[in-house]
Amino acid sequence: MTDAKNRLTITEVRLTPILVADPPLLNTQGVHQPYTPRLIIELITEGGVTGLGETYGDTKYLELAQPLASALIGRSVTDLNTLPALAAEVCGDSPAATGAEAVDAGGLRGVQTADKLRLSVLSGFEVACLDAWGRSAGLPVHALLGGKVRDRVEFSAYLFYRWEEHPGGRGERDDWGAALDPAGVVAQARRFADTYGFTSFKLKGGVFAPAQEVAAIRALAAAFPGQPLRIDPNGAWSVRTSLEVASELGDVLEYLEDPTSGTARMAEVAAGTPLPLATNMCVTTFDEIAGAFTRGAVQVVLSDHHYWGGLRATRELAAVCRTFGVGLSMHSNTHLGISLAAMTQVAATVPHLDHACDSHYPWQTEDVLTERLTFRDGRLDVGDTPGLGVTLDRDRLAVLHRRWLDDDGGLRDRDDAAAMRRADPGWVTPALPRW
Amino acid sequence: MTDAKNRLTITEVRLTPILVADPPLLNTQGVHQPYTPRLIIELITEGGVTGLGETYGDTKYLELAQPLASALIGRSVTDLNTLPALAAEVCGDSPAATGAEAVDAGGLRGVQTADKLRLSVLSGFEVACLDAWGRSAGLPVHALLGGKVRDRVEFSAYLFYRWEEHPGGRGERDDWGAALDPAGVVAQARRFADTYGFTSFKLKGGVFAPAQEVAAIRALAAAFPGQPLRIDPNGAWSVRTSLEVASELGDVLEYLEDPTSGTARMAEVAAGTPLPLATNMCVTTFDEIAGAFTRGAVQVVLSDHHYWGGLRATRELAAVCRTFGVGLSMHSNTHLGISLAAMTQVAATVPHLDHACDSHYPWQTEDVLTERLTFRDGRLDVGDTPGLGVTLDRDRLAVLHRRWLDDDGGLRDRDDAAAMRRADPGWVTPALPRW
Repeated sequence: MTDAKNRLTITEVRLTPILVADPPLLNTQGVHQPYTPRLIIELITEGGVTGLGETYGDTKYLELAQPLASALIGRSVTDLNTLPALAAEVCGDSPAATGAEAVDAGGLRGVQTADKLRLSVLSGFEVACLDAWGRSAGLPVHALLGGKVRDRVEFSAYLFYRWEEHPGGRGERDDWGAALDPAGVVAQARRFADTYGFTSFKLKGGVFAPAQEVAAIRALAAAFPGQPLRIDPNGAWSVRTSLEVASELGDVLEYLEDPTSGTARMAEVAAGTPLPLATNMCVTTFDEIAGAFTRGAVQVVLSDHHYWGGLRATRELAAVCRTFGVGLSMHSNTHLGISLAAMTQVAATVPHLDHACDSHYPWQTEDVLTERLTFRDGRLDVGDTPGLGVTLDRDRLAVLHRRWLDDDGGLRDRDDAAAMRRADPGWVTPALPRW
Repeated sequence: MTDAKNRLTITEVRLTPILVADPPLLNTQGVHQPYTPRLIIELITEGGVTGLGETYGDTKYLELAQPLASALIGRSVTDLNTLPALAAEVCGDSPAATGAEAVDAGGLRGVQTADKLRLSVLSGFEVACLDAWGRSAGLPVHALLGGKVRDRVEFSAYLFYRWEEHPGGRGERDDWGAALDPAGVVAQARRFADTYGFTSFKLKGGVFAPAQEVAAIRALAAAFPGQPLRIDPNGAWSVRTSLEVASELGDVLEYLEDPTSGTARMAEVAAGTPLPLATNMCVTTFDEIAGAFTRGAVQVVLSDHHYWGGLRATRELAAVCRTFGVGLSMHSNTHLGISLAAMTQVAATVPHLDHACDSHYPWQTEDVLTERLTFRDGRLDVGDTPGLGVTLDRDRLAVLHRRWLDDDGGLRDRDDAAAMRRADPGWVTPALPRW
């Protein structure tokens, strides 16, 4: 016993902030910057095993990650139920964890609280603990979560209005070209379908006037008849506009994602349409669930293990949703393969995962893995390789960290509005509802 | 990896039904029989480790346990998320799992459905899987559940009106004597406090007219001033009686447990008193939660890993309760040390366990362990011994199994009303509400 426990004791934690290339993807707040900060976590055990984790890399997250990393030394990778209390204890006095100020630009991740910021940091360490534990035990992470209930996890194509390149030609280039109208959106979807086999499609909306985005969805429905479609304007619409769109697209949408902002408005929309409403904005913490569920404001929660506090918390969210007859799917922000592997492991364990998950991963041309995860038939295989089943490429990690160290633009935080001002100096983050 | 997984493969499952001595404890349905059937599960892995589980041993449970035991051969002890589907598959055609007939006499365990019966059987196997996995990995079961958040779990004294002996002197004798009035209840509580250090007290009510039971609680309050008290008439009271008792005892009760039967009546009572209502009768399945929580019918759920489907399901229940601001404690039926160890392991992992747990264990003079669990200061220590931390006494198991084989009274199912008819031939299970 003592031996078993000792082998799982954490002896070292390495934190490596990186900047990863991000294409000029548009949303209602602005446009993705050329690079997005991420934090890569390596957690080494007494037994010599390294566990990997990944989370947001913005300054405030880094500020909390440092004390939490120090506090983990000497603990077991199995001590997960006490992580929230530990995080609250060691991060409690951090300026980043206190006060009500925004932790990310634009509010695309929903309510911004100190608790949620801590959970987002903690989630990266929880994943690293599970990875280390699994590698040490010779078991995949899904086994540590009770075992997979499916051998493949389905993802949807995540379509974006986008420019061909970042303003001023900054950042890395890709070969996707621009997509600013229905034809461009359909062409993008076609490439996603051909390359990765995705059969359901989500369009990030809130960029153009609703009529234009409705036309894009109609074009997708014509190009991919009968296949599940979704649109997500990130709360940009009024209740009235949401209901109009729901009425116009009700025959082709699988669900309508965050058409309007706030539980009260979502409840109004839900009461006026049979179309299910999904959210990763008005239900992003356990505290928000009761109010939303009892009012019938959402029919699908798009979970995100980062801000719900890890893979085990995601399973708890799934249990709450199942209990209240609310569907479950998965949200995604810009992320790399470690987080995608973590998403896939937990998704494989949830019986009532009712919809294909979102992932930005195909947009990321860079990664820190020796081998990228590969979508086939729109799905990722869930293997039995110990831990997350991914291997860190230290050279790639060093390159992306060097970029973070060197970045002369001082890019340290995601800020879609600031990026937009490079193209449109008068741009201000739009007030919601925008339309 | 293959080695690790192989070692955890189930190669054999042994099911041993037993009869365990039970004192003549009274409740609103009747009286405990001289013996209660339990099922002891031994699950052996490829690696040569044995995991222990325990659940109800009534005929219908045994009928489902056999096919489930067979279906487990060749699976890994880590494959827990698929257990419910497996149980539904292999038990689906069992007469015991179909139809709406009662699965236990009197309905003290709440709604009786095929799903719940399956979960109660499954829970014994889930615990045995976790025990085997923990022993194999050198980790306590609580570590497999994310680790303990406390080193000791508090229990309450479970007081019963009781006779000195079973009708006709059947069964095993004990030295507790009768308790049929306030003085007898206080004397029983005193012995519990002196012997085990319990500092909170629950009285099983619904036996005598409410005024007599109110008097018993008042006597307890006088004898143990300021200590938490509870009364549980198993739904025997009307809404009006419940509110009267709540009013009379509101100053001394920690909560009122199942004063009346059914969510609708519980909601009426809850609306009329500030006293929290607890239940292990109207919320005993995930399907019952939404209706009860949205109506504010219960403020504390008394979980029971047997009928909620295991330790991991109990943690999911805890997450649902926490999310909706509902308290959590633990219910207990007649059980032995394996189940008590399992309760304690999961209780140690739940942050928001707000109340001392119930346990019948002190009433059980027999066990199948080499060493009984010991309450100190009303608490059980949560150690780091691998698995559940308990050892099977094969000789004791054989003796209790022999009793099950030999019992000439044909005792195979718990039936408190039948036992009561030994003393009162005209006894019929009272209709609820009784008062």
